[in-house]
Order: sequence, then C-alpha cells, then structure tokens
Amino acid sequence: MATPLVIRDRNVMRKLILTNRTMGRRIGFVPTMGSLHAGHTSLVDQAVAECDDVVTSIFVNPSQFGPQEDFEQYPRDFDADFNLLAQHDVRWIFAPDVHEMYPPGDSTRIEISGPAEPYEGTLRPGHFSGVATIVFRLLQAAPSHAVYFGAKDWQQVLVVRKMVHDLKLDVEVVTCPTVRDTDGLALSSRNTYLSKSERKRAPTIYAALEQAEQNWCQGLAIDTIEQKLKDMLSAKEIQIDYADIVHTESLKKISEVSPNTPAIFLIACRVGSTRLIDNILLPSQALSSC
Amino acid sequence: MATPLVIRDRNVMRKLILTNRTMGRRIGFVPTMGSLHAGHTSLVDQAVAECDDVVTSIFVNPSQFGPQEDFEQYPRDFDADFNLLAQHDVRWIFAPDVHEMYPPGDSTRIEISGPAEPYEGTLRPGHFSGVATIVFRLLQAAPSHAVYFGAKDWQQVLVVRKMVHDLKLDVEVVTCPTVRDTDGLALSSRNTYLSKSERKRAPTIYAALEQAEQNWCQGLAIDTIEQKLKDMLSAKEIQIDYADIVHTESLKKISEVSPNTPAIFLIACRVGSTRLIDNILLPSQALSSC
Repeated sequence: MATPLVIRDRNVMRKLILTNRTMGRRIGFVPTMGSLHAGHTSLVDQAVAECDDVVTSIFVNPSQFGPQEDFEQYPRDFDADFNLLAQHDVRWIFAPDVHEMYPPGDSTRIEISGPAEPYEGTLRPGHFSGVATIVFRLLQAAPSHAVYFGAKDWQQVLVVRKMVHDLKLDVEVVTCPTVRDTDGLALSSRNTYLSKSERKRAPTIYAALEQAEQNWCQGLAIDTIEQKLKDMLSAKEIQIDYADIVHTESLKKISEVSPNTPAIFLIACRVGSTRLIDNILLPSQALSSC
Repeated sequence: MATPLVIRDRNVMRKLILTNRTMGRRIGFVPTMGSLHAGHTSLVDQAVAECDDVVTSIFVNPSQFGPQEDFEQYPRDFDADFNLLAQHDVRWIFAPDVHEMYPPGDSTRIEISGPAEPYEGTLRPGHFSGVATIVFRLLQAAPSHAVYFGAKDWQQVLVVRKMVHDLKLDVEVVTCPTVRDTDGLALSSRNTYLSKSERKRAPTIYAALEQAEQNWCQGLAIDTIEQKLKDMLSAKEIQIDYADIVHTESLKKISEVSPNTPAIFLIACRVGSTRLIDNILLPSQALSSC
C-alpha cells in the first residue's frame, strides 16, 4: 500500500501521465464520482492487474445531472475515498474542482446520437452529453492506455465506446462485471439513499432479472418474460421506468427469443424516491449457461 | 519543390505525423476544402516558415453545409490543388473520402455555444458544429503542433479556438491575414460562382469596409458607419445578411466608438446568388493607424 498522490490541476495531471507513458509505463484510468464502493474498487483492481500505474478520478460531474436530479445531494466523502484507493494501490487521484473541469465561459460539448438516444437518453435529457463531455476531458487530463467502466451502467459504456470509436481516441475501453451485494443488489452510490425498508425491497430487482434469465433460457416469449419481471417488481411497489430486452449493442428491442442475438435485459426503476438501474446479459441459448 | 505524399487513410496519416513528432520535427497543419487559391497558399507559406513539415488536408466536409447549401456544387480540382501544394513545399496531402472521416453509423458531434451562436451560427444552423467536428477529426488524423486558419473566416477561427481551449487540445491555432485580389475582393473558393458582372461589383464589399474603417477613425457614430456601408452595398445591389461592428472576441455588438475596445466589422452578403463574407479589424483610435 502506497499513499496516492492527489492532483487537482488538469495540466499537472496530464504532464505526469505523459511523462510516465514516455517511460514505457502502461496507465489505467478509473473515472468515478467518488462515494466509492466495492464496484469501484473492482475496476481499480482490474486496472492495477492490467497496468503499471492506475489513476482514479473523483469528480461529481454537474453536466450529467438534470436540473431536478440529485447533484447537490449526491454523496461525497473524499477522506473515505482516499483511504479506500490507497488500499487498492492507486498511484494518482485526480480530484479537480468544478471550475478546473468547466472554467467560466466554457461552452464546448460532445453530443452523441445513436446509443445515447433511447432509455437513459430519453429519460435524462443531456445526461449522456454530460457523460461524454466529462469523460473526454478526463481522458485529456489523464491520457491513459485503458479506461475502466462497470457493466451496471451498460448504456454509458456503449456511449463512451461510441465516442472513442467515432473520435478515434487512443484509449481502450474496458467493461468490468457488475459487483453485487450478497443479496444481489447491484452496488451503487445511490443505494445510500434507500431507507431500511426500501433496502429490503431493492434486491427484488436482481431477483427479477435472474428469473427473467431463467425464463429466457426456457424459451418463454419476450412479452411474457418482461411481464413477469414487471409483476414481480410491482408486487414490491417498485416503479418501473423501463424494463426491456434489447440488443446489447444497438439497444433495439428484441421481439423474439433467438439463440444468436446478443441480448441484455435493461431496467430502470424507482424504489421509493431512489432511481436505480440494473441489467443482466441473457446468455446465448446454444451455450451450456442456458 | 518536393512531391507531396498523398494519404487517404486516417490511421496512416496519424502514424506518420506521430513518428515525425517523435523525431523532434515541428508539424504545421493547414486544413482546406481544396479549390485552393493564394489565400490557402499564404497559410501554407506561413506554416512552412514556422514548421519543419507541413500537412494540408483537402476535404469538402459535408457536415458544415446546410441542406440547401452548395456542397454538391462546391468546386473540386484535386490535380490543380496537388500541383499548387507541391510548389509550396507541402510534405503531405491528407485527402480522405467522406466515409473515411464519417464512417457509416458515425454519431458523435462537437457542439459549441458562445462564439458559434450569432451570425453564421444563426444563419447556417449546424455549420459550426460541422466545422468543429471535422477540425477535431482532422487534428486527430494529423496531430500537429500548429493549425493555420485565415482571418476572413473570423467567426470560424473563434469557434476553433474555443474548442481547442475548452477541450485542451494540444495545438496552437494560428490566424493569418486575409489575402485579397488586387481590387480588394477577399479570395474565396466561392468567388468562382460569380458572373462577370457580379465579379465587377464584388470589390465594393471591401471598399465599403475600408470606408467604414476611415469613418471609425474619424469617430462617426456606429449606426452611421454601419448605415453608410449598407448604403454603399445597396447601391451595387449587394444584399446584406448582416453588417455589424462587434467585439473581436465576444462578437457582441459595440454601441459606441471606443478607443480601447477591440472591434471588427463583420459582414455577410449576397452578390447575385453567391454568399460572401468579409471583415475588417478596426484599429484602436489611440494608434497611429487611425
């Protein structure tokens, strides 16, 4: 365990990374909004395993929150985050303030259509433009060989991959598996918003996704699979924003169970006033996993 | 005079430039839409003077043309452009086709508010997003130390500078003076659209700007200066899209002649069906140039 170096300045961060690249070191980057949990540290651990040096950013990005969303309330605890990252061998923590990333008068945004349009793109207008814009800027500040994201935010990963592809950015996008609590609830900084009783109901989300996976493998009709999931959540008073089986890349709705279509069940829902997202990859029925 | 190497592939271009950068060579980049004239070659000459190697791109960028604009009709003559660039010691010509720069499914755009909003931004919706997006991509393909633009497209220069600043791109933006024909008409590839009689009337644009400069130095009211220019153009049946004295950076209208405000007279007008833009920097009245 080494003490990470905390850097607040974009230019300093960039020079440090470029210098280390020049020395032949492979750099891994884990962008976060802080409030770190085992999902984040799993990204860090994978980056540490695959790279010589790991940089983690902690930045609650205002441009990806809508005006009615939880930017102000979003949990922040730098000291706890620092200690956790130190335990996981992060070399640098990039922790700029808002004006460092968005100086006064700043007016350039990256807009992505395609994968950024449906689902979260529709329900959170501007969200993915905010994500793309900050990821681009963070990658300018920390020009790394690889950047790590969690599969829980599936659509976000697609959007970042699209930007990296379309703009030919020199970085590998690595997707890491969702980390769950023992009862199945996907780890999320927003889980701290849940009351005790809401926290008890929330694991139903993943239980319903697992049931859907089984129904998928048994060849039930898509509509039936989706309806059964919705029924299971409704029984626990969980409100559904969307719950669709879609193509993993195009995010187009899948109308028939097909052994060769790469499919994912995407869900966004509200437990009380807390909005949570989750997903499950639906295995190819030709595989033994089905 | 050496024969330039023509490159069509973004990845090949990028590797070539990066290799030459590694060898310590300073690279200058002149992006163009071809149909080259002495305005373009003045950019090339300045780049050659300031850099070790110069790359020029020739790419008529569809994303900066509106649906009713002249993308199809825009003049193209690769052989003439090649010969001209060879005479001006360009080392590489980057001439990708449309699918190379915008592969099928491409969906990432760069959007800039602020300097991209008024004037051309209002009259040509999407134009500056197209400009920013292609300049970004060209700079990815040709990652140069400096990129050269002509002052005729003043607002374009501001937009590119804003993008470079906001996204912290590693490139110096160099603005070069407008090159004019002997009768004052600013060189433009679109001048070829003018009929003989239109070509005879077109120099009035710059004559009117020069008159405005004199009136500015004599301290006439802004409204009067602008009106006199409009009258002079109307007399030649030149239609005005806008003709405003504005702050050189903010593009905000200037209401009073002031010795310390950096001012520019921006004009867009139509001679027949050909749309032309031009501008003149208005000297500080404290300077002897006034």
